Amino acid sequence: MSYLDNILKSRRDTRHFTADEVPDEVIQNALQAGHWAPSVGLTDATKYYIIKSADVKSAIKNLFLDYNKKAEALTDNPEQKEHYKSLKLEAIEEAPIGLIIAYDRSVLNQFTIGTVGSNEAVKFSSVCAAQNIWLSLTEQGYGMGWVSILDYYQFKKILNLPEEIEPLGYFCIGKPATNYDNQPMLQQLHWKQKSEAPDCTEIKNIMESSIVDLPLQSAKIFKTTANFDRLLKDKIESKTKPLGALGVLETLAFQMATVFQTLEPKITNPNIVVFAADHGIANHGVSAYPQDVTRQMVANFLEGGAAINVFCQQNNIQLSIVDAGVNYDFPTNINLINAKIAKGTQSFLHIPAMSEAELQLCFEKGKSIVENIAENDSNCIGFGEMGIGNTSTAAVLMSVLTGYTIEDCVGKGTGVDDAKFIEKQNLLQKAIENYSGQAELMEQLAYFGGFEILQMASGMLTAFEKKMLILVDGFICTVAFLIASKINPAIKNNAIFCHCSAEKAHQKLLDYLDAKPILQLDLRLGEGTGCAIAFPILQSAEAFLNKMASFESAGVSQK
Amino acid sequence: MSYLDNILKSRRDTRHFTADEVPDEVIQNALQAGHWAPSVGLTDATKYYIIKSADVKSAIKNLFLDYNKKAEALTDNPEQKEHYKSLKLEAIEEAPIGLIIAYDRSVLNQFTIGTVGSNEAVKFSSVCAAQNIWLSLTEQGYGMGWVSILDYYQFKKILNLPEEIEPLGYFCIGKPATNYDNQPMLQQLHWKQKSEAPDCTEIKNIMESSIVDLPLQSAKIFKTTANFDRLLKDKIESKTKPLGALGVLETLAFQMATVFQTLEPKITNPNIVVFAADHGIANHGVSAYPQDVTRQMVANFLEGGAAINVFCQQNNIQLSIVDAGVNYDFPTNINLINAKIAKGTQSFLHIPAMSEAELQLCFEKGKSIVENIAENDSNCIGFGEMGIGNTSTAAVLMSVLTGYTIEDCVGKGTGVDDAKFIEKQNLLQKAIENYSGQAELMEQLAYFGGFEILQMASGMLTAFEKKMLILVDGFICTVAFLIASKINPAIKNNAIFCHCSAEKAHQKLLDYLDAKPILQLDLRLGEGTGCAIAFPILQSAEAFLNKMASFESAGVSQK
Repeated sequence: MSYLDNILKSRRDTRHFTADEVPDEVIQNALQAGHWAPSVGLTDATKYYIIKSADVKSAIKNLFLDYNKKAEALTDNPEQKEHYKSLKLEAIEEAPIGLIIAYDRSVLNQFTIGTVGSNEAVKFSSVCAAQNIWLSLTEQGYGMGWVSILDYYQFKKILNLPEEIEPLGYFCIGKPATNYDNQPMLQQLHWKQKSEAPDCTEIKNIMESSIVDLPLQSAKIFKTTANFDRLLKDKIESKTKPLGALGVLETLAFQMATVFQTLEPKITNPNIVVFAADHGIANHGVSAYPQDVTRQMVANFLEGGAAINVFCQQNNIQLSIVDAGVNYDFPTNINLINAKIAKGTQSFLHIPAMSEAELQLCFEKGKSIVENIAENDSNCIGFGEMGIGNTSTAAVLMSVLTGYTIEDCVGKGTGVDDAKFIEKQNLLQKAIENYSGQAELMEQLAYFGGFEILQMASGMLTAFEKKMLILVDGFICTVAFLIASKINPAIKNNAIFCHCSAEKAHQKLLDYLDAKPILQLDLRLGEGTGCAIAFPILQSAEAFLNKMASFESAGVSQK
Repeated sequence: MSYLDNILKSRRDTRHFTADEVPDEVIQNALQAGHWAPSVGLTDATKYYIIKSADVKSAIKNLFLDYNKKAEALTDNPEQKEHYKSLKLEAIEEAPIGLIIAYDRSVLNQFTIGTVGSNEAVKFSSVCAAQNIWLSLTEQGYGMGWVSILDYYQFKKILNLPEEIEPLGYFCIGKPATNYDNQPMLQQLHWKQKSEAPDCTEIKNIMESSIVDLPLQSAKIFKTTANFDRLLKDKIESKTKPLGALGVLETLAFQMATVFQTLEPKITNPNIVVFAADHGIANHGVSAYPQDVTRQMVANFLEGGAAINVFCQQNNIQLSIVDAGVNYDFPTNINLINAKIAKGTQSFLHIPAMSEAELQLCFEKGKSIVENIAENDSNCIGFGEMGIGNTSTAAVLMSVLTGYTIEDCVGKGTGVDDAKFIEKQNLLQKAIENYSGQAELMEQLAYFGGFEILQMASGMLTAFEKKMLILVDGFICTVAFLIASKINPAIKNNAIFCHCSAEKAHQKLLDYLDAKPILQLDLRLGEGTGCAIAFPILQSAEAFLNKMASFESAGVSQK
């Protein structure tokens, strides 16, 4: 055994000291040994504090006692607890010299070599110094004990150490009273047995990284294959968050990427289209507002004063207003899309709301409006409506197309009173009973339809063909979606249900469609307001998918 | 100079080796020297891995090169950058032997002597082993170089090291080609000059600690005049929409105007503060993630890669990150608010999580953080948190403060499995049973609290005083609100509950508080993400109140 090995082997974590004094020279030699220790980036961050005062020692001893009681409480095993309590783990008051070895972490405020992967190298340098000191004291015939059981906050506070100084512990120094039979004290006292030999393994090869490189080109188009789904799922699961922790946002991101067929989906030029039209059924007093409010609100949209204007402006959404059949001659206005079928539908109480030709025209107009928007490089379209009386139209369409009773489908609309509500229900029931046509979709749509509702349904079918996201607003808009999905059920893949409105029939219809809306904010306004308000949440989904770091890139441990 | 001193002094951090082989015996001696190093609580946690394969070395070299490029980028000083680039900081491929010295942190899963104040003693033992090895090699005529510039996440991954094994770095071993003129290489190359002597100070007396009483507010009830309320209600009802048709947005607008005491409320400089801290209870395996993830996520916040970064950026919200008590020494960083109380709380299974002084400090720090934000003209603050194990802390606090059983309060957190869930529940039940203190709020908070939770509670109380909107995030944040509202129930006037999380206990707690959250998106992430995602909805409320036309101004008929 070499000279050094003898020192290394006989160094003990000492808790039993004689009363002998420690000459200054011994301490000087020991600190010089510490100073020869490595110092990452030559930061020289190690600081020493010497304690000889009995008062200071006694205050530190109290901190130890306080925390040692805590330590005792950490074991449930009564035998272990007794054994632990019997151990002498410090000699703060007996050891003639107290030493604090600390590091100054403020060195990290400057550029420091060797700390880019982990700044712990700074404290490790100080630990090396501690070991050098230990060895030097051993060679000189002295001993040291490292006391780590302390409340470091109080420790720094009572010693008035600056904020940036981090102590490794308190070190007791003196002449050892025993060498514990030349073994660690905890082994001598049968706490534990030190292993015979160091634990060493040879590493002969590396693990090839199994992470598939995600294609970064956003332009790359994938087929919706299991492969794309898997890559997309991997990408979502690689983000620095627990699995599934972004809930609905994850579903939205998955849907968005699938609709756009890219792992880096981006909504471009989002557009909300408000289709306005009047309804013959309104003449029977089903609404709390006069029919003229339809045109007044169109004027309000054009002036920028309605709720949908405010929310579109807030969220940078383009707003388009369509006259699908308002009972008013608007002057030509560049901001109003003219798709007027007629000045309102007929009342379907006794006769069809529109002709087959008008129905056909609704599909054509709805299609061409959405085609234009798609051509302007928009891949996300929200549908909204305005039309006094259109909750009645929507209720009847829902009842006819789903088989639910009219009671289940009718709501108070924009707010009729109780008596009016019963009247409305009876009227609509009568209208349905009066229908003598076939249970055939197109015939039913012509009989009970509304111009704005059918244009919306057609627009949704077109948006699906154009691979756009389809934002569905409230009750009336969802009835338009019901119609569209009867024609092409696949459109549901592109549909995002933005809001469950306060119209009770809306929840029922969403259940029928097995649709989960994003928001429940008690809105009952229409105009596409649900789409506009939910839109930032879609952006959140897009943002997390494209911008969040992965466990890999951020170096965060996965479970 | 003694024999040992000669070795200590001539030990060099070596980056230049000859091609000579290293006999196995030399390595065996060196590892034996490492094995003689101290081992806290006789844990024997040090593990060694030997690398001889050129392929493995080359893969590690690549990791070094990658991170060294990062390091270069950290200095703006062009001269320093050139100097840095010229330095040889490793010899991974040239040195015949590579050694990894690591520690197994899973030893902390058992009762371990010497780790109650800080668990770093485990890694310090391994550093002492590294220093012994260095000295042994020096005595034997060999040298070692410590390479710390590595991406440790990738390093562990390519070497297939188990999760619980934490390497101190990569150590190059061989016959030294130079002794750098008997001085550190960085000194020889004029990077820095090592100081002549160790820096040592004697501490002669202690500071008396001065604990101030907690600044608890007596419940101040916010009073609004009936007149203001009527004017505000009139303003909301004048908007061009059916009465109440904007649902929750109307409630929010009313609240906002009332808190800011103006009919034209405006959110200025919204800020989300994420408080991060570690929890002693995490040592008992209550989380699906290792505790180290807390600091990793803080780094991710600072790098801008986490979910909350992405959502704050999306919605123009200022983000502040607070180290309330993470078990890690962060270098000073202008973007990280240092409010560290300690490196994590104690486990409250048997003993208090924190002292009264620490509790006091939590209230002080939380207050001052929010005061600073208020001074920067912010009137809207969101609270978020990060802390492995903090759903356990929150669950216990909820149970203790509401009287609900622990079963009602505990959730799966970031996703533990069923067996662990039962274990977690039992453990927390035991912790509550072990509590022998008074049913007194402050005592309970010190016993079961978390640094981030208490700083949030204090921050909320301050935000209320400063007449700010208080955005409450998920379950843990709502527990902080529960604490704050026990101290001052009036803060509810200013609170907006942003999201009902997927943690089942959260709905229960919201019911207890009679709080109606804005969103239900199945989020269970924390970090303030619910606040950030809900924020545009607050802006919608503000926008409709300030920008929508009235029936009067738009010429729309009221019913």
